[in-house]
Amino acid sequence: MQIEPKILKGFRDFLPDAEARRKHLQAILERTFTSFGFVPIDTPILEYTEVLLGKGGGETDKQVYRFADNGGRDVAMRFDLTVPFARYMALHRHELYLPFRRYHISKVFRGENTQRGRYREFMQCDFDVVGTDSTGADLDTVLLVLSSFAAIGVPAIRIHLSHRGIFNRFLALHGVADKTADVLRSVDKLRKIGADQTRALLEETVGAETAAGVLAFVGATGNADTVLATITGLAGGANPESERVAQLFAAAQELGVADSLVLDPSITRGLDYYTGLVFETFLVGAESIGSVCSGGRYNDLVGLYSKEAMPGVGGSIGLDRLLAALDELGGGATVSAAPDVLIASQDATLLGHYHGLAQRWRAAGLKVEVFPEEKKPAQQFAHAERKGIPFVVLCSAADRAVGVVNVRRIADRTTHDHVPEDQVPPLINGETR
Amino acid sequence: MQIEPKILKGFRDFLPDAEARRKHLQAILERTFTSFGFVPIDTPILEYTEVLLGKGGGETDKQVYRFADNGGRDVAMRFDLTVPFARYMALHRHELYLPFRRYHISKVFRGENTQRGRYREFMQCDFDVVGTDSTGADLDTVLLVLSSFAAIGVPAIRIHLSHRGIFNRFLALHGVADKTADVLRSVDKLRKIGADQTRALLEETVGAETAAGVLAFVGATGNADTVLATITGLAGGANPESERVAQLFAAAQELGVADSLVLDPSITRGLDYYTGLVFETFLVGAESIGSVCSGGRYNDLVGLYSKEAMPGVGGSIGLDRLLAALDELGGGATVSAAPDVLIASQDATLLGHYHGLAQRWRAAGLKVEVFPEEKKPAQQFAHAERKGIPFVVLCSAADRAVGVVNVRRIADRTTHDHVPEDQVPPLINGETR
Repeated sequence: MQIEPKILKGFRDFLPDAEARRKHLQAILERTFTSFGFVPIDTPILEYTEVLLGKGGGETDKQVYRFADNGGRDVAMRFDLTVPFARYMALHRHELYLPFRRYHISKVFRGENTQRGRYREFMQCDFDVVGTDSTGADLDTVLLVLSSFAAIGVPAIRIHLSHRGIFNRFLALHGVADKTADVLRSVDKLRKIGADQTRALLEETVGAETAAGVLAFVGATGNADTVLATITGLAGGANPESERVAQLFAAAQELGVADSLVLDPSITRGLDYYTGLVFETFLVGAESIGSVCSGGRYNDLVGLYSKEAMPGVGGSIGLDRLLAALDELGGGATVSAAPDVLIASQDATLLGHYHGLAQRWRAAGLKVEVFPEEKKPAQQFAHAERKGIPFVVLCSAADRAVGVVNVRRIADRTTHDHVPEDQVPPLINGETR
Repeated sequence: MQIEPKILKGFRDFLPDAEARRKHLQAILERTFTSFGFVPIDTPILEYTEVLLGKGGGETDKQVYRFADNGGRDVAMRFDLTVPFARYMALHRHELYLPFRRYHISKVFRGENTQRGRYREFMQCDFDVVGTDSTGADLDTVLLVLSSFAAIGVPAIRIHLSHRGIFNRFLALHGVADKTADVLRSVDKLRKIGADQTRALLEETVGAETAAGVLAFVGATGNADTVLATITGLAGGANPESERVAQLFAAAQELGVADSLVLDPSITRGLDYYTGLVFETFLVGAESIGSVCSGGRYNDLVGLYSKEAMPGVGGSIGLDRLLAALDELGGGATVSAAPDVLIASQDATLLGHYHGLAQRWRAAGLKVEVFPEEKKPAQQFAHAERKGIPFVVLCSAADRAVGVVNVRRIADRTTHDHVPEDQVPPLINGETR
């Protein structure tokens, strides 16, 4: 009565090289985040449904893995890392310090339609600075994104950014502030449905004149100074939000990274809760895959749980989409999960000797596997080749007696004979690094 | 209408330093595992219930988070990493190579009674070598455990081990092989209820004479040679399993690690599926916390899903229990999530300059946070102190003009004045490392 070893649709196993690659990417991001003073946190995968969805749930309901646990509690698996972070800050506010900058890389779950290549379990990578409403934190966010992608080895990125506060001024000037959500929804469709259909949608909501203004606003092009002048004008002239964008670009100029930033008023990030900076990030050469890192500034993270307001700014990297984008770009470093060398087992009486060599070479920095049982050399070579281990060490009792081994390079089947045992780490390091 | 930011009983948030500590421990383990040729894998947190529990579920049922998903599938959150690994090997057998050595560090979920200090979400760390029934793989497992705890910095451990095959011979010799499960259950209680009560339990099952034999077997003490001779004799004399234990101890002797191994026939690991080596690991000085790493050899990993037999050997580290044990031992390195230096914001016009210094010092290996907004120096010092950042850099427009900064050490409130910008990384590295 055997059971089919199947997995759920939208869920994935990771084979060793794929998992090693994901871990490698994660390690690079963590090093970059901590180098900016961001600290790691963790939260449970399972939470009270009320905490994740608010009272009565919400429109995301159908995508949420929600159930009653054995104690009858209404629980759900987290669908993002933002809501748990808000709950975390409300609960631990007095054990922490503000401004608080955290990162969190972990799995989230959404019962989405898998036909669009979406997964139901995927890794999210979030970073935020909360407790400060400042250009400094906005700049930190932008620099962190730039440094992260540079550390990954991506040749070039463009961060398209804008400021929702300027757009809000523009809408208020036209007397349609109460239509903000509808306007954002229409603007968000611009790239998909084009200007004409977007105009039609907007005209229904805000009339022809304002619709034309909206399209002029989100369609402004040119260098950052020109675009800023255009949208500032459309929003009624000089204002603190435009000034903030100017400060951000001035600092970017001073830091030599302005070429990676694009002031792009079509970036509005549909979500209603953004209030300041909004941004999306594209890999040059793989733009079609969409934004690989998006985010912005919000006025209040913890409003659902606490009366104390807490502004913040941050972003989110979809690791799976990023991995796919890196594939598309090509040329990235391959990450192998395999060790550097396999010690073949030729003689059962040398069991201790083989493991002793392995321990010494590990201490010298090599990753060393000992083949666990006597088999024909050809089978042990085949194992190394299949696993991607570049070198196999052979050692007989006679070799042991004189303190040498034989090192075979799998790629070209050449062998260094009679290598003194302690010369193996420098030999292998020299050939592979 | 605010919502209480509560979390579920048995689930935990991790504050930054606790999470940094867990990540640090995990990184050490991963380095050690990969240095032995073990490769990482991942599997979904959610699986078909049938895959995890077998047809009809089982006695673990009540501890399992099980529910119907939105598509009506009977699904469950994984309660260990062993069952998913078995399913993984059955599914991917032909994409992998044998012997296959994998590790997997991830969360598992059990709806256990939380009164005993158990958590319902916890990190498991498993490692196994499958596809080989060999002393070499058994030795690999033991050496990996020793190297892992040495890398963590634990002063000394003892691996208590035995061989279930010898015990099985003993039971067969007494004609009670069919009572194995009952006998194991009784022996497992020995440490908790003592010899007399265990004897009473055994006598009910296998009679007085065999009960006395069982107690003599599991109670054998002395050095490894003596104990092996005793249990081999009780099991009817020389046999391949005893020979294998002798080989393992001979290799350990040759490798200089025999002092860390204890041949302890009371270790039987209740679970029925172990067939060879069984072991438990204790930290010297924190034995009372129980075994921090347990495992053994099994005949068949994938029997539930496949006709192909796949023997293996491996173990499991409970990361949470290990962290608690390390606390009990004390003296371990504190892990801080904080950066090395905070650049204070004194002058908004220097925004770009502060971030430029940060980027240069990051490139030199420092972790650098820039305080995001102008505040009184005392408030910025307090932030550094609260977060555990050892140094604060102050820089005015006049300092900038001559390329210097002032470095304040938080611990003793001393300041190095007028330090040339590029001297900051060596200064801070020199003082902290």
